[in-house]
Amino acid sequence: MAISRKIEEFMEKSSWIRKMFEEGSRLKAIHGADKVSDFSLGNPNVPPPEIVDKTLQQLVSENTQGIHAYMPNSGYEDTRSAVASYLSEVLGVELNAGHVVMTCGAAGGLNIILKALLDSGAELVCPAPYFVEYGFYCDNHGGQLVTVPTRENFQLDLSRIEEALNPKTRAVLINSPNNPTGQVYPERDLLDLGKILDEKSREIGRRIYLISDEPYRDIIYDDVEVPSLFKVYPHSIITNSYSKNLSIPGERIGYVVVHPEAEEVEKLLGALNLANRILGFVNAPALMQRLVKQIQGVCVDKGIYEAKRNLLCDGLKEAGYEFSVPAGAFYVFPKSPIPDDVEFVKLLQDELILAVPGSGFGGPGYFRLAYCVDDDTIKRSFDGFKRALEKALK
Amino acid sequence: MAISRKIEEFMEKSSWIRKMFEEGSRLKAIHGADKVSDFSLGNPNVPPPEIVDKTLQQLVSENTQGIHAYMPNSGYEDTRSAVASYLSEVLGVELNAGHVVMTCGAAGGLNIILKALLDSGAELVCPAPYFVEYGFYCDNHGGQLVTVPTRENFQLDLSRIEEALNPKTRAVLINSPNNPTGQVYPERDLLDLGKILDEKSREIGRRIYLISDEPYRDIIYDDVEVPSLFKVYPHSIITNSYSKNLSIPGERIGYVVVHPEAEEVEKLLGALNLANRILGFVNAPALMQRLVKQIQGVCVDKGIYEAKRNLLCDGLKEAGYEFSVPAGAFYVFPKSPIPDDVEFVKLLQDELILAVPGSGFGGPGYFRLAYCVDDDTIKRSFDGFKRALEKALK
Repeated sequence: MAISRKIEEFMEKSSWIRKMFEEGSRLKAIHGADKVSDFSLGNPNVPPPEIVDKTLQQLVSENTQGIHAYMPNSGYEDTRSAVASYLSEVLGVELNAGHVVMTCGAAGGLNIILKALLDSGAELVCPAPYFVEYGFYCDNHGGQLVTVPTRENFQLDLSRIEEALNPKTRAVLINSPNNPTGQVYPERDLLDLGKILDEKSREIGRRIYLISDEPYRDIIYDDVEVPSLFKVYPHSIITNSYSKNLSIPGERIGYVVVHPEAEEVEKLLGALNLANRILGFVNAPALMQRLVKQIQGVCVDKGIYEAKRNLLCDGLKEAGYEFSVPAGAFYVFPKSPIPDDVEFVKLLQDELILAVPGSGFGGPGYFRLAYCVDDDTIKRSFDGFKRALEKALK
Repeated sequence: MAISRKIEEFMEKSSWIRKMFEEGSRLKAIHGADKVSDFSLGNPNVPPPEIVDKTLQQLVSENTQGIHAYMPNSGYEDTRSAVASYLSEVLGVELNAGHVVMTCGAAGGLNIILKALLDSGAELVCPAPYFVEYGFYCDNHGGQLVTVPTRENFQLDLSRIEEALNPKTRAVLINSPNNPTGQVYPERDLLDLGKILDEKSREIGRRIYLISDEPYRDIIYDDVEVPSLFKVYPHSIITNSYSKNLSIPGERIGYVVVHPEAEEVEKLLGALNLANRILGFVNAPALMQRLVKQIQGVCVDKGIYEAKRNLLCDGLKEAGYEFSVPAGAFYVFPKSPIPDDVEFVKLLQDELILAVPGSGFGGPGYFRLAYCVDDDTIKRSFDGFKRALEKALK
């Protein structure tokens, strides 16, 4: 034994997910990648808006001195100003560069938030199902992820959240539009959540922050709106990335923004800046900061994802699956026709369909389909979905 | 109190360094930036080789599909192959893509290495003076940094290192060419260190790895050579970045490479891949991976840094300072003429010279000058250095 015990455990625990992926690769090697319907990965397949590479070309050809140099750990002042100015409108609260820290994606953003807030043994409350990385992020900083069930349609169960709050709680983490469910939380629930957090903070004598992970904020359908967290609870911290709205997830660029009236806001912003440095991110990639400065508000054509959602949901409905129609993001989270979702995902594999068991997201009895894939991939899966359901119910 | 106790402590502890920087900003505001000689920052001032932006332009204009997409957490296979092929020659050991993990700079590299190796209470042994971030990186993953003094010219004191090894030791971390001293460790010392680690690992029944942080490997002077760690000890892990040799520190691109015969090499590489993911780096920035693939072995004109070293060292010698001439990197670490290095750095500030006290690097009684600055900045500092020395000795 030479490596970390904990990492060794993590590797063993995550090995069944790895086995699923390996099984997928095996199936693709045997049958050809074009025969397999791979819904396992949340890798945006819509290309970046043309302005992304156009702006990059312009930036690189300008050959500005120091374009790749170090900058303050929170990022370029002018990029942070541009982000603050855009978000002031979107979130309905006046913000400036000082409220923004540029990060290595939302994953980097969450890690600096948790580093800034958690002490050993501190708790982070999160509704389940949830993005599986949250557990690791919490553990990275000595914290404990406490998950609470959601109610129908994977909406917030406020009384369960309230029950979970205690003097060890440092924050509640929400993710809306949600991965893996695709659901969006309405403003009235968030307002109630804010009230609960306020009361509980007073009761325990320590501020409980509300953290929101919003990488899918711009990928929403129909007439759905994602409410501004900053309007429902001042002690809020939002992280976001440009991975999905600009389709550049490999570039690792995002931000954290703190409500100007959050408790200990100056200290918190100082802590985020320090955490960006000492966790080894140092700063968000320089060139990508210069890119996003220039194209605030730009988004891929979400109509493409909406059409894919409709296509897949129609097929699943036709095949007889139970599910909530996603309001945003590019995931649908149908109910497994048998209680053992891992077993059902294997039945789907027999039909050359790759899905991720809900157990991997703290949502056993369901499975996740990421529909950021070619339309053909979706269409050729329908017969397989039907057959798998029939086999499962036999 | 709402933020993490530990981060709050860190912020207080590091506040005197912040005060130095603030003092520097104050001086620049009063006297003009062109009157102040700022030697406080290791921010490369030599521009990137022309091929950097030329290659970036080409990459962006090719508009390859998926150029900004996710990839495996360890990075692009072809980039890792290119790095492995180049390093096989440099390090004298046959390597392939599987031995390389692309990282968000060497800071990201060190954090994934320490996440992979350390458990709570584990120890990392490091010769002092040392890069101050190492203490934070160690603490991030529950470890303890154990520093041991160096001998004359800041060379490794092998018997002190040996004394520090115990069953809690997971690795020894070296940094050569060194920040802050500019010294390079010769091969004979590294061979002896390898023997000590081998014996001690046998004695305690657990492998002690040797980690090397080598961002300055290509910035060396005279006929100095940086020995290959892979030739002296097989249980070695090297991290490096392109921040200094390509002058692109803001872009956060680097790698970790593991010796093919390191103990538990496969498990270690799996752990590094997982750590890249769960620490929130996810992957090294995509576009920069494509860049470095194409320009392996390219380096800024280190002759420029060598000339600056000579200029500054001549001036310091003339002024009467004691110091070891740096063999690499872009730092010189002169002895403070009075024991209190913080006090002496204040005397330098009175002369509009900004330096960092050695105490900030576990090297009290010295101060660090980063000479990656304009020649004029160096030249106009000479009189001030003389006056500060005179005042200190009064």
